[in-house]
Amino acid sequence: MPMLSDPSSKYLPYPSVPFAEGYTRQWPNKRTTTSPIWLSTDLRDGNQALVNPMSNTTKLELFRLLVKIGFKQIEVAYPAAGETEFQFVRDLIENDEVPDDVAIQIITPARPDLITKSIASLAGVKHGIIHLYNAVSPVFREVVFRNTKEQTIDLTINAVKLVKKLTEEETARSGARFTLNYCLETFSQTEPEFAVNLGNRVLAEWGKASPDAKVYFNLAATVECAPSNHYADMVEYFSNNINQRGSVLLSIHPHNDRGTGVAATELALLAGGDRVEGCLLGNGERTGNVDLITLALNLYSQGVSPGLDFSNLPEIVQVVCRCNESAVPVRYPYAGTLVFSAFAGTHQDAIKKGLDAQAARWEKVDITGEGKKYWAMPYIPIDPKDIGYGYENLIRVSSQSGKAGTAYVIKQTLQLDLPRRMQVSFYGVVQNECEKSGKEMSTALITNAFKQKYCLSSKPIGRLHLQSFDIVPLSPSSVTSSLESFESDGTSTPPEQGRDLIRFEGHISVDGRTRKIMGDGKGVHLALLDALRGDLDLEVDIGDSTKTVTYLEVNLPGSPTSKSGAGSVWGVGVSSDPTTSQCRAIISGINGLVGDKRFPRAKVVFTPRRDQSAQRSESWLRDFTFRAGHNVLHTPEHERSELIAASPI
Amino acid sequence: MPMLSDPSSKYLPYPSVPFAEGYTRQWPNKRTTTSPIWLSTDLRDGNQALVNPMSNTTKLELFRLLVKIGFKQIEVAYPAAGETEFQFVRDLIENDEVPDDVAIQIITPARPDLITKSIASLAGVKHGIIHLYNAVSPVFREVVFRNTKEQTIDLTINAVKLVKKLTEEETARSGARFTLNYCLETFSQTEPEFAVNLGNRVLAEWGKASPDAKVYFNLAATVECAPSNHYADMVEYFSNNINQRGSVLLSIHPHNDRGTGVAATELALLAGGDRVEGCLLGNGERTGNVDLITLALNLYSQGVSPGLDFSNLPEIVQVVCRCNESAVPVRYPYAGTLVFSAFAGTHQDAIKKGLDAQAARWEKVDITGEGKKYWAMPYIPIDPKDIGYGYENLIRVSSQSGKAGTAYVIKQTLQLDLPRRMQVSFYGVVQNECEKSGKEMSTALITNAFKQKYCLSSKPIGRLHLQSFDIVPLSPSSVTSSLESFESDGTSTPPEQGRDLIRFEGHISVDGRTRKIMGDGKGVHLALLDALRGDLDLEVDIGDSTKTVTYLEVNLPGSPTSKSGAGSVWGVGVSSDPTTSQCRAIISGINGLVGDKRFPRAKVVFTPRRDQSAQRSESWLRDFTFRAGHNVLHTPEHERSELIAASPI
Repeated sequence: MPMLSDPSSKYLPYPSVPFAEGYTRQWPNKRTTTSPIWLSTDLRDGNQALVNPMSNTTKLELFRLLVKIGFKQIEVAYPAAGETEFQFVRDLIENDEVPDDVAIQIITPARPDLITKSIASLAGVKHGIIHLYNAVSPVFREVVFRNTKEQTIDLTINAVKLVKKLTEEETARSGARFTLNYCLETFSQTEPEFAVNLGNRVLAEWGKASPDAKVYFNLAATVECAPSNHYADMVEYFSNNINQRGSVLLSIHPHNDRGTGVAATELALLAGGDRVEGCLLGNGERTGNVDLITLALNLYSQGVSPGLDFSNLPEIVQVVCRCNESAVPVRYPYAGTLVFSAFAGTHQDAIKKGLDAQAARWEKVDITGEGKKYWAMPYIPIDPKDIGYGYENLIRVSSQSGKAGTAYVIKQTLQLDLPRRMQVSFYGVVQNECEKSGKEMSTALITNAFKQKYCLSSKPIGRLHLQSFDIVPLSPSSVTSSLESFESDGTSTPPEQGRDLIRFEGHISVDGRTRKIMGDGKGVHLALLDALRGDLDLEVDIGDSTKTVTYLEVNLPGSPTSKSGAGSVWGVGVSSDPTTSQCRAIISGINGLVGDKRFPRAKVVFTPRRDQSAQRSESWLRDFTFRAGHNVLHTPEHERSELIAASPI
Repeated sequence: MPMLSDPSSKYLPYPSVPFAEGYTRQWPNKRTTTSPIWLSTDLRDGNQALVNPMSNTTKLELFRLLVKIGFKQIEVAYPAAGETEFQFVRDLIENDEVPDDVAIQIITPARPDLITKSIASLAGVKHGIIHLYNAVSPVFREVVFRNTKEQTIDLTINAVKLVKKLTEEETARSGARFTLNYCLETFSQTEPEFAVNLGNRVLAEWGKASPDAKVYFNLAATVECAPSNHYADMVEYFSNNINQRGSVLLSIHPHNDRGTGVAATELALLAGGDRVEGCLLGNGERTGNVDLITLALNLYSQGVSPGLDFSNLPEIVQVVCRCNESAVPVRYPYAGTLVFSAFAGTHQDAIKKGLDAQAARWEKVDITGEGKKYWAMPYIPIDPKDIGYGYENLIRVSSQSGKAGTAYVIKQTLQLDLPRRMQVSFYGVVQNECEKSGKEMSTALITNAFKQKYCLSSKPIGRLHLQSFDIVPLSPSSVTSSLESFESDGTSTPPEQGRDLIRFEGHISVDGRTRKIMGDGKGVHLALLDALRGDLDLEVDIGDSTKTVTYLEVNLPGSPTSKSGAGSVWGVGVSSDPTTSQCRAIISGINGLVGDKRFPRAKVVFTPRRDQSAQRSESWLRDFTFRAGHNVLHTPEHERSELIAASPI
């Protein structure tokens, strides 16, 4: 049976809030510039919704975490529900677990016996908040309680009277401070005029609300039954019409049945809300209470400090999930594992450019002392590092990702900024791997593929493997490292290196057999090429280059230059020593070229190419080297050293 | 390192939308009364975000599901991204997979070669939508494309020109119909005036927008970077300022980085949005695209037909999760496994009352033909049955649940509406089980506990087990069943039963040994009691009763009546035969009472109690019996029959 074609026969639309004729809502004009008061109800509303409620030991662990995060108001139990809940409150107080600046809140229904038991649990508390509740919407009055409006008010007032009496007695006994937090359960489904009327009666009965001792009203969206703007309207109406507004605090308690709990909270705060009740990661009945982490970080990402610390979000998530026996959905805002990941190639490309541009911008701020190091990153609205994540997942590669994804991974893991044309070439390698495995190319797999493809390993991978070499100067000279003289725009060419005639003597394994080779040249690379030519019949001309990392693209003989990178192979050499770097690049490139050709007898000729992007990427590496302390990128420095150490000399 | 104490040093607040001085927003005054056009991008934006993108076979399965649900616009591929994607479009068209009333959309970046390839994929399509996109926000212009505003416009206009030319050529060739869907990627982060300017230039270049052939503008919140009301402001501004508004369709494409994608969509629809682009279950990059299921069912729950059919949501969820290799979070709106569950005792109590009240209300509508069978249920905003779920999970029992939870389960599984005092008593049994196991009491466990506790089993459970019995009339009479004469308010007392002297002859096992018992009385129950008295020395007085289900509360000798139910035991008998029911209740109650007392030698005396709630529950059962066809509750009729069959006679 399909869904109703006319659902209006079954579901009533939400009623409008009775603003006066011509009234203009204020909340849509506002923006939030300060943090609300936060009330965590993880240990109560959250706990009640668990398939397996927490033990008191687990509750204590979570309580301590909440304190550590910075919550100053924590709802800890429903003490009238049972001995265990009651005891938890006693333990907190008797074991002095509650810091002086933290208030603990307990909830009680508006029934005399339960109120009495609940307040008894708070004996000796420093600051206790009594969360007194009864549901006040029509369906509850009519169906659940069978009460009229007046009966509902009477019931409430009697309860408030008892709370007042018992808390005043306890204050007289122990000096405890108490706050009344009266909850209009199902507020958002209640007639606004009746809600205000009830609130005003509570205020009058309490009789001692003041700006220093406010009465809290919990305006609960117990069930989310209307769009988020309706809740804001409800709160604005209540805020406008409740008496003694300056002595009243409006507490927002949204649920998420329509998936709009976070938005409803944000709009309700614009409309007059002062305080938010919710749970970490949105635990709670049905679709959950509103998630306080999302709310806090939404504020943070707009430059407003939430006064809560989620700088170690991964650990917090771990503890919460363990306590609640829950898991975080992979796409959950801020906390999901895929949130700081991009799979689409265009996204990856933009993030890559964004990171580079931001690094440059921040460096300029450092140097000039002008401007702000503000965050402006394509697709990533908050710096993952602010909340304890690295950049390592920013780009993830699937068969739908482009070259930028693979290039980003290599940049992250090996600190190699591949020239664009090489990205295209290497992406083909990754695509093949993807298709073969049918699965995501993990960072490890991509990195390994790169090392394999370009023979960056201490173990022999290609047919040629350079085992060792000596350089014998044949004429005296001073070799100057070119590293320091690069310009910061990364486009200048390196200075000429000294041109000294030297001899290269080394051991190279060819198809597993070690051969000694020797050659002379002006510079190590030329000497090596001479050795390869003379001893292995490999005819190579690579021009010259003296970089720490060397990228080498070689056209296959007879192939035209193509945009896609077909028709060429690449070699890479990495070393802290420019010479070694070159040698490695050459061997790496030759390995990609020789294929199954037989040599040393066959003669192989190939010619080099260098392009602008290669120069840029080389200068980036220099940038990296000199800026490693800046934390601009997530830099596994040890891995890079490892790579250099592990690479064949 | 804690989070920044002043995040404004790093994060800029969202800019305000430049409404004219004195302008009053219109969207907060509005409400949605019709459904938007839906565009599913599961096969494109969703697919691109997957760790393992779908194969074309899987994409086809999902495409067919989307068609079946009722989508009339489906984005199917990014054909320029690769051969597989291109081929998917070709297969759809060539294999005639696309119904006449469904338009397929493809996406292309604003690059000539990619546009050409993309439009080529649509050769022979009936109605194709060209989703042309480029990112237009400052950070993209400056960092990613290094374009000025004018360059951005030029790039866009050239792309539109090419799309126009190529689609007109294809239309001339095949008669295909095309719609331009120009996407201002990162619209929500773009200067509103520039966005409008760009939109107007596109309109002018296209030159043929009309009310019958609208140009679509995709106003993408590519990254959610501001509260939901800001997005609505952006859309209202664009809607107010774009030319040819009647020939333009505004398409909303929100993401969920702040957890407010659904709300942003709902507000943007108020602000002028005509169409929504999203994915089932919110698949998509990072936090996902907006979830179309939540949006559609939010509308539905407000009485607005979404024009999509989710009446079999469980099956749809299963297919989507399989295709996307994903899982639905347990608290996900509408689709999560815990969404139609209540664990808190007060919630359970209210739902229980709500279901009963609604059943009565609906029956009244059926009888009188007046009013609507509208849904008004505490805590449950939509009828689970409308979307393919039952009521069986509405109440789940944990150690935090109250008596109502257990009572509800018994009502659901055994159709027994326990008197309130018995709920309290039985809840103690359940609590013990919870504490012992430390786990949730499943429905099965609760039901078994009930059967065990009250000896409702064909196998002997208590010390006494009635094996068989015969009734021998000692004087002629007609025994009238009292079932039919109950009043519908459930409070009237049953009529007197015929008072015929009969003999009860039966076999009962006592501690495993079978004993024959025999007694006389006016009515079976009195004859049984006589037999127990005479043969087992059990002195029992239960008054009389002739119900199908019999609840029996017996005070322990010397115990005062207490509210909590301590000091009494309960017995239950269920049978389609009133007599058998009573006998069972008596044996059940005695089993709870005899404890380890020795008998038949010891004399045991106990006295009955009947209260109002017991009568109510009995009448409910009658109600149930006569209303089983009404589907008022999820009624496992077979289980009830089973229970009756399995009970000891």
